[in-house]
Amino acid sequence: MTPILTAFKHSPDRGQGLARDMRVRWALEELGVAYDVHLLSFEEMKQPAHLARHPFGQIPTYEDGEIVLFESGAIVLHLAEQHLGLLPDDASARMRAITWMFAALNTVEPPIVERSMAWVLEREQPWYAQRLVMLDERVRRLLGELSARLGDAPWLDGDFSAGDLLMVSVLLRLQSSGIVDEYPVLAAYIARATERPAYQRAFAAQLAVFQNQ
Amino acid sequence: MTPILTAFKHSPDRGQGLARDMRVRWALEELGVAYDVHLLSFEEMKQPAHLARHPFGQIPTYEDGEIVLFESGAIVLHLAEQHLGLLPDDASARMRAITWMFAALNTVEPPIVERSMAWVLEREQPWYAQRLVMLDERVRRLLGELSARLGDAPWLDGDFSAGDLLMVSVLLRLQSSGIVDEYPVLAAYIARATERPAYQRAFAAQLAVFQNQ
Repeated sequence: MTPILTAFKHSPDRGQGLARDMRVRWALEELGVAYDVHLLSFEEMKQPAHLARHPFGQIPTYEDGEIVLFESGAIVLHLAEQHLGLLPDDASARMRAITWMFAALNTVEPPIVERSMAWVLEREQPWYAQRLVMLDERVRRLLGELSARLGDAPWLDGDFSAGDLLMVSVLLRLQSSGIVDEYPVLAAYIARATERPAYQRAFAAQLAVFQNQ
Repeated sequence: MTPILTAFKHSPDRGQGLARDMRVRWALEELGVAYDVHLLSFEEMKQPAHLARHPFGQIPTYEDGEIVLFESGAIVLHLAEQHLGLLPDDASARMRAITWMFAALNTVEPPIVERSMAWVLEREQPWYAQRLVMLDERVRRLLGELSARLGDAPWLDGDFSAGDLLMVSVLLRLQSSGIVDEYPVLAAYIARATERPAYQRAFAAQLAVFQNQ
């Protein structure tokens, strides 16, 4: 059975590739796994049929006949465990790559999302400018530390892994802010990752959903 | 070699068990693994020796002679893969438990941390009350969805797993707010988890660090 991914019927970012289905599409493309996409409206996401797949009524979910999963991080890990290409064979190196997956999602992404959400929800508020300074400072501290760790290496730990895939996906959420450009090491890292043919195919696939509307 | 965990020398929460070493201590206790703790001051956390372990200069880290890991989620997953007791044997059930780990850390924790950080950083600001309403609304929506999914079950999916361990750890960060008490299903879930002897031992161990100062 071809795996089925759920994604937004009406992309909130209008095809910029920032929705979380993009991470899973990218992993599927890196691993050479064909997939189908089931598009959901915001209303459909909160209906019982989808809540059975995803308790928080979000996208993406993943079904392959054997399993129904939610959470993009878990889906990427599942795919990386099922197919060769996104996790090293060596047990320690594999666990270090998985550590970078958690770092992307639990350390780096939350302040970046908080910054984006402030723009969405609070940009008309009188306090927005003052909060943005604080939010930017926190993001810059993380980017400085990440940049220092990456240094001259092409990827976070050895070959490109699911850890890089998630880290780059998270950093891309900052793209419109221009902040990443202050960190040339990270800008080059993102460029290196997004030039990968698998990223390009995944990006085109999610953009097509929007262009076809 | 006995594994070594790093933790705060000066606990910001004064031993309430909310620092992220607690999750790893709890997992170690559930699995019956003895461990040593290396306490670090905030200054030591940002020194090269610790940055080599943890690129973001945080706690906890975990070293067992074979591997050095950071990120509490990754460490708990590593331990759950090395020892029986926190992940089911069945491949699909194992992956569903891991999905709950990611859900705890990437979906449920960020809005809870944002709420706590607002109290720490913004409670003196004129906008705090207005933002808190918005932050509480987001947290309540998530708790409502989580409560609906849990329903009458004792744990999120089958037996107690690393997913429950992380979800309860995350929910405990709301304890002082009283919000969880609005969701009796979740209050009972937290009580069930924190009554476990392994949780009690881990809690006592982290509290002892503070009491001995």
